[in-house]
Amino acid sequence: MENGEKKNYESYVVVHNIAKRHNVGTLARSATAFGVSELILVGRRDFNAFGSHGSTSHLRFRHFHSLSLASSFLKERDCDICGVEITDNAVAVNEHPFRKSTAFLLGNEGTGLSAKECEICDFFVYIPQFGGGTASLNVTVAASIVLHHFGGVVKL
Amino acid sequence: MENGEKKNYESYVVVHNIAKRHNVGTLARSATAFGVSELILVGRRDFNAFGSHGSTSHLRFRHFHSLSLASSFLKERDCDICGVEITDNAVAVNEHPFRKSTAFLLGNEGTGLSAKECEICDFFVYIPQFGGGTASLNVTVAASIVLHHFGGVVKL
Repeated sequence: MENGEKKNYESYVVVHNIAKRHNVGTLARSATAFGVSELILVGRRDFNAFGSHGSTSHLRFRHFHSLSLASSFLKERDCDICGVEITDNAVAVNEHPFRKSTAFLLGNEGTGLSAKECEICDFFVYIPQFGGGTASLNVTVAASIVLHHFGGVVKL
Repeated sequence: MENGEKKNYESYVVVHNIAKRHNVGTLARSATAFGVSELILVGRRDFNAFGSHGSTSHLRFRHFHSLSLASSFLKERDCDICGVEITDNAVAVNEHPFRKSTAFLLGNEGTGLSAKECEICDFFVYIPQFGGGTASLNVTVAASIVLHHFGGVVKL
C-alpha cells in the first residue's frame, strides 16, 4: 500500500457448495478487507442472499451452476486457479507461489477439495501448522490467511 | 518445522468477555493448529464449557476473573502482551515484532480493545488491509492471521 509498484493482480474466491451459510458472510468480510474482486459461488443458488451484506459494498458476487463454467470464466480472465488444500504437491502459502491474478478454491470443511474440484486447479497451497496438535482450520480462517498473503505480496 | 533452530517461545491467546460464544470454538481450532500453549479466558466464567471441544486436546484453557490477574500470570512467565488493534503505534503483523513468548489480547468485535485492555499491552500489531474496501475482520480470523505469523517466525 505504502511502497513499491502496484501490479494490480486480482484475486477471486471460489466457493463450491459451502456447507455452512454463516461462513459466507464472514468470508465476505475478509474478502473485502483483502481486496478480493469477486466472490464466486458455484452450485447451490441460495448463496446469493449474502450479496446484500453491509461489509460487502466493494465486493461483487457471481454465481455459476457448475465448476467448469466457473473455470472457463476465470481462464478468460487469465487467472490461475489455486486450490487451498494439503496435497502432495502443495506449496506452503508462506512461499508465495503466486504469479498473476489468482482465484482461490476452497473445499468443504472436513472433506476438503473433491477430485472434481482439484481437476480445475493449476496449483495448490497449504497453510503450515505448528506445535503439538493439528486441527482442520475453519474455511474462512484458511481463506483469510491465504488472501492476506496474496494481498501482501502481489498488491504491495 | 523443517529447518532451523527451534526457539520454543510460547504463545497464548487472551480472550476478555468475548461477545460470541461460537467464536471460542473456532479460535480453539486455530490455536491448536498454530501451537498455542494456553487459551486464557478472562471475565465471564461460561467460556470454560469450551474446554471439552474435540479439537482442543493439545490446548489448555485457563480462567482469570480480571485482566490484572491474567497480566500478572503472563508477566511471571516472562511473556510480552501484544494487543491486536489498529492504534497509532501498532506495527504491521507482517513485520514480525515478536521477541519472546507472547500473549495476544483480542478485543471484542466492533468496539475493539478498551482503554483498560490496552493498558496491559506491551505493544500492538495490526493486520494491513488491501483494496478498495475496508472491513472489521472476524475476531477469530484476526487471531488466526497473527498466530500464523508468530508461529512461522518464532517457532520455525
